[in-house]
Amino acid sequence: MPENRQVLIDSLPSGKLEASNYKLVSSSMPEPAANEVLCRTLWVTVAAGARAGLQGSASYAGAPKTGVVMNGAAVARVEMSLSSDFEKGDLVVCNAGWQDYSVHDAASLKKLEGSVAPVHHLGVLGTNGLTAYFGLLDIGKPQPGQTVMVSASGGSVGHIVAQLAKLKGCRVVGTASSDEKARRLTQTLGIDAVVNYRSPDFRQLLKEATPDGIDVYFDNTGGDILGSALFRMNEHGRIACCGVVSQYDTSNPAPGPRGIPGLLVNKRITMSGFLVFDFAERYAQAREQLSAWIQSGDLAPLVDEIDGLENAPEAFVDMLAGGNIGTRVIKVAE
Amino acid sequence: MPENRQVLIDSLPSGKLEASNYKLVSSSMPEPAANEVLCRTLWVTVAAGARAGLQGSASYAGAPKTGVVMNGAAVARVEMSLSSDFEKGDLVVCNAGWQDYSVHDAASLKKLEGSVAPVHHLGVLGTNGLTAYFGLLDIGKPQPGQTVMVSASGGSVGHIVAQLAKLKGCRVVGTASSDEKARRLTQTLGIDAVVNYRSPDFRQLLKEATPDGIDVYFDNTGGDILGSALFRMNEHGRIACCGVVSQYDTSNPAPGPRGIPGLLVNKRITMSGFLVFDFAERYAQAREQLSAWIQSGDLAPLVDEIDGLENAPEAFVDMLAGGNIGTRVIKVAE
Repeated sequence: MPENRQVLIDSLPSGKLEASNYKLVSSSMPEPAANEVLCRTLWVTVAAGARAGLQGSASYAGAPKTGVVMNGAAVARVEMSLSSDFEKGDLVVCNAGWQDYSVHDAASLKKLEGSVAPVHHLGVLGTNGLTAYFGLLDIGKPQPGQTVMVSASGGSVGHIVAQLAKLKGCRVVGTASSDEKARRLTQTLGIDAVVNYRSPDFRQLLKEATPDGIDVYFDNTGGDILGSALFRMNEHGRIACCGVVSQYDTSNPAPGPRGIPGLLVNKRITMSGFLVFDFAERYAQAREQLSAWIQSGDLAPLVDEIDGLENAPEAFVDMLAGGNIGTRVIKVAE
Repeated sequence: MPENRQVLIDSLPSGKLEASNYKLVSSSMPEPAANEVLCRTLWVTVAAGARAGLQGSASYAGAPKTGVVMNGAAVARVEMSLSSDFEKGDLVVCNAGWQDYSVHDAASLKKLEGSVAPVHHLGVLGTNGLTAYFGLLDIGKPQPGQTVMVSASGGSVGHIVAQLAKLKGCRVVGTASSDEKARRLTQTLGIDAVVNYRSPDFRQLLKEATPDGIDVYFDNTGGDILGSALFRMNEHGRIACCGVVSQYDTSNPAPGPRGIPGLLVNKRITMSGFLVFDFAERYAQAREQLSAWIQSGDLAPLVDEIDGLENAPEAFVDMLAGGNIGTRVIKVAE
């Protein structure tokens, strides 16, 4: 009988997350009951937002727990089905978490359709891409010729936001965690400018990269980058608050930006937090549009694949430090 | 020839504003030229927002200057007119500033009309009332049965917001700077609860006063009150950012609230800064509605009158410390 490897949350981080907060164990194979399906994980995500789930109670991800399998969406293959809706070999998206095998109620599975590569269902056609789509288009409302800034522009959400903003005819300015990464992003994504937020001259560099100010800021980070963006916002600008990755990897989040609420008033800025789940009834329509852009070549989603379930903890720690470009996934099985 | 007393900004405050930052001088009478009008100030405002104009460049009120007459809107009587549009004795609203006499281009004057008492044109029918009206109704969008919180609820804007929110069928919770003021406001304005934000138990008291959370927060203060309100906001709540009075009377504004942007994301809150000037084309319509509510007795705007131009600096300092209830004006002449 095959082994079911699982990565458990062994302890909660007291400061920065470390790979040692996880433990790889071998457990018995789960068995499906009536209307359940046994799935084999092919790829599983490491998602920045999941770091918030290890932090405390003030998160949509819920209160943190130890001794459980680390959460993560997966593309999986059906190994055994006790449901008439699925058969062995079907590819599905499920909340498998970081493990080889998992059992799911058939109603919770989504069968993969369409001609887009399966792994993209964890990126551009999954939560990341939908977040980029609704956050930029519905909350940010960019107009052709405007300037869109996106933080963590190499990230799973950010790299799609950047491309969608280019598609909408905007000047796009991103941030990244090193000069080298900034150069790669400019070349890979066609972003107009990417600024290294760790540079001591960050504010000056951001100013130079946004000669006409910023009309839409898609904020994945919060913290100092948000504070700096506020000073470059144009009147009646819009800030789509998507995530706070600058504050996830700590047990002591920093105060908010000094310009709030003063700059919001002076510049009549609107800042809106959003969660993609609120747009669920429009997912199908968004996926259709995103798929069409991929097929036309207008959108080139990036997948940053790390091999081996055992490497998931290190891959997560590295991603929180800005090591990825595109959606980081763990390749668990062929 | 009558004397023209003027209150000049003598020095910029380095910390809290003091009356000694102003200087009372006697100056020669101004003389109108063609199409100009000489006005005698009857009442002039002391407005919290004007404190921001003494603070630095990051304000819609512009960069601070010394040696000039302190700014403030006034209700004035025409003393001499070289314009066919005005005659001696007309009552007008003008930007007189803190002085007895001032000369204005006729085109910049607004003649008083209607049956509402003249001084209300500096309050409920002036910038304060219009700010309350558009900020609450257009930005806050309160629905019957919802909870509206307003900070500085005894202030020139806040006391009108509170009454308009009651008119809209909402539960209204305010803040004030002392228990005694909180009691007076509850009695005077019919607010459901007013919490003393200086109490060491402020967060707990606010929680008790908002058992169903907060749907709309009209923020006049920023700072800790905003930070506390964020934790009580309901999902999809709206924050109308009107002013930052907690940060005006200092040369070292505090950092922003810790929950930004994290709580905005988790609760899908929208925070919008606004300035009343953006609604100028709807002023007439708003004044008509506000006047109707005054006449029907639904709205009871409060005027906090201090006698004597020479007392304006002390009255301003006291107001920044929360000494006023309603719109504070200086009675300059009969």
